[in-house]
Amino acid sequence: MNQDKMGKGEQSRARLLQAAAVQFAAVGYHRTRVSDIVRQAGLTQAAFYLYFPSKESLYQELMDGFFQKLWELSDAGGKVTPLARHEVRDRMKENLLELFRFFARMPEQTRIVLTGAEEREELHRKLTSIVSANLRKNQEAGHVRPELSVEVAAESMLAVVQRLTVRFLLSGERTAEQLAEDAAALLAKGILQADRTKEE
Amino acid sequence: MNQDKMGKGEQSRARLLQAAAVQFAAVGYHRTRVSDIVRQAGLTQAAFYLYFPSKESLYQELMDGFFQKLWELSDAGGKVTPLARHEVRDRMKENLLELFRFFARMPEQTRIVLTGAEEREELHRKLTSIVSANLRKNQEAGHVRPELSVEVAAESMLAVVQRLTVRFLLSGERTAEQLAEDAAALLAKGILQADRTKEE
Repeated sequence: MNQDKMGKGEQSRARLLQAAAVQFAAVGYHRTRVSDIVRQAGLTQAAFYLYFPSKESLYQELMDGFFQKLWELSDAGGKVTPLARHEVRDRMKENLLELFRFFARMPEQTRIVLTGAEEREELHRKLTSIVSANLRKNQEAGHVRPELSVEVAAESMLAVVQRLTVRFLLSGERTAEQLAEDAAALLAKGILQADRTKEE
Repeated sequence: MNQDKMGKGEQSRARLLQAAAVQFAAVGYHRTRVSDIVRQAGLTQAAFYLYFPSKESLYQELMDGFFQKLWELSDAGGKVTPLARHEVRDRMKENLLELFRFFARMPEQTRIVLTGAEEREELHRKLTSIVSANLRKNQEAGHVRPELSVEVAAESMLAVVQRLTVRFLLSGERTAEQLAEDAAALLAKGILQADRTKEE
């Protein structure tokens, strides 16, 4: 929603969410205090507790939508299975593009989950299991090279996406489009079966 | 050197180095105290200061050799340039194998540099610049695909090696040989020019 069309309460709420996102991204959830959030938002502690019962509840609200979309995007490989061989590479690139665009739209949440020690381990396990399962399905469908370990491929894909996001996307050095192009070029050849016929 | 052939002093010194490596790997350099090291080594503080002037000097000794070898191994791509096209892929796999074997031989130091926040940023910059420079040379020599961004490729290679090392090698789930095989299969196709003639 555009700020102009928000009521004053909604604006304050949005400012608190944004200020908290910046703080969590910079120093982590545990080291962020409500007093830091309200100072950054230019509001009072009283205003904070008008909109959020606690720091935890604000964090949940900030991250719930992010994670829901992240699971959806990381599961996009599952829709590749029924495609014809020659469509798979383009779809892989589109999926990467959507993921990088999502990270670019939500830089603070992305930084929280990709660089914050608190979230990383569990997130990592969950993402790996989603991506591995889809790679296995796509291997059975003949899209993924049969000799490949899907666990190794999943870890590698995620490591590449994570590193490129932190190093080039969040720093503003490259766009989502450039990174999707490069990551797809790199990963598709290593992971996908060669499309020798181009019309299979 | 075999422990049997060491003098008592050398044995104590080696025990302190090993105990310190384990502690640094587990909790990081800053949170490790000399008292933790001597307890783990079964020695006294007095013994520690007989062999090392400080925690810093022990750390330097532990890591200097490791870093020297790490720079050497990460620079191995530079020796690929004069090779014939059909030799490059095998050499890339051999280089990865040497790197994974080195990490497997030095698990504590590897953990310190790959997972310890203290070392990571600077290490990362240095490794990326070594690998990028070699990829660029090999791109000019026609070994690396011309459309590839060498910075993106370098970051991706390092991210994959780091992730596979932490996830599968240090955990003992896969051997250096298995990982070199998989990483080379994944990365070679994405990075190297196709060797269509096999005899170029």
